[in-house]
Amino acid sequence: MAKDGTLPDMAKIERHFFVCENARPVGGKPSCGARGSGDVAAALQEGLGRHPELWGRVAVTSTGCLGPCFEGPTVLVYPEAVWYVGVTVADVLEIVERHMAGGQPVERLRRQED
Amino acid sequence: MAKDGTLPDMAKIERHFFVCENARPVGGKPSCGARGSGDVAAALQEGLGRHPELWGRVAVTSTGCLGPCFEGPTVLVYPEAVWYVGVTVADVLEIVERHMAGGQPVERLRRQED
Repeated sequence: MAKDGTLPDMAKIERHFFVCENARPVGGKPSCGARGSGDVAAALQEGLGRHPELWGRVAVTSTGCLGPCFEGPTVLVYPEAVWYVGVTVADVLEIVERHMAGGQPVERLRRQED
Repeated sequence: MAKDGTLPDMAKIERHFFVCENARPVGGKPSCGARGSGDVAAALQEGLGRHPELWGRVAVTSTGCLGPCFEGPTVLVYPEAVWYVGVTVADVLEIVERHMAGGQPVERLRRQED
């Protein structure tokens, strides 16, 4: 519930960033969490914080395993179903400015399908 | 990586169910996890398991907080951005058969926007 007593209006979310934060012990199957996805998620949240015009229209949410474990950290964006892999904190500014704020996916970070 | 050595084909996912499993201590702000969303997520996975024709085309993923904490457990479905709230294990069969398998949202469970 918002501070004014109303319920949050999820219908206004235009773009939703999901960041895999699944963590496995180092040395076995790789995981986004072990590869630094927590820092990626934090940087995405910080980027959203710098764009007040997007508050309530963009969401960033952590998730469990999204699937492409060998290619992570993975970020999945809906409704357009854009899959980013190998995302680092150094990539986040470009994702925020180009995709989160500009609506254009960052092609160089998109997952290559078989 | 799949057992045959190929990478998973995420591009084939047609519908993605996100289940909030955020948990807070009981007695404070409510949370989906404290309200049983883990069982909801497990039941959705089991439901998907009963539909082999959907394997690879539907995904079920746990998430951190999705926002409508006072109305949870929350399930969010993309790409159509359907928000379900107050979901219990007893609702899952209907969600699986009607929405996951049939493509039609369960209207009675959808969140009412302001």
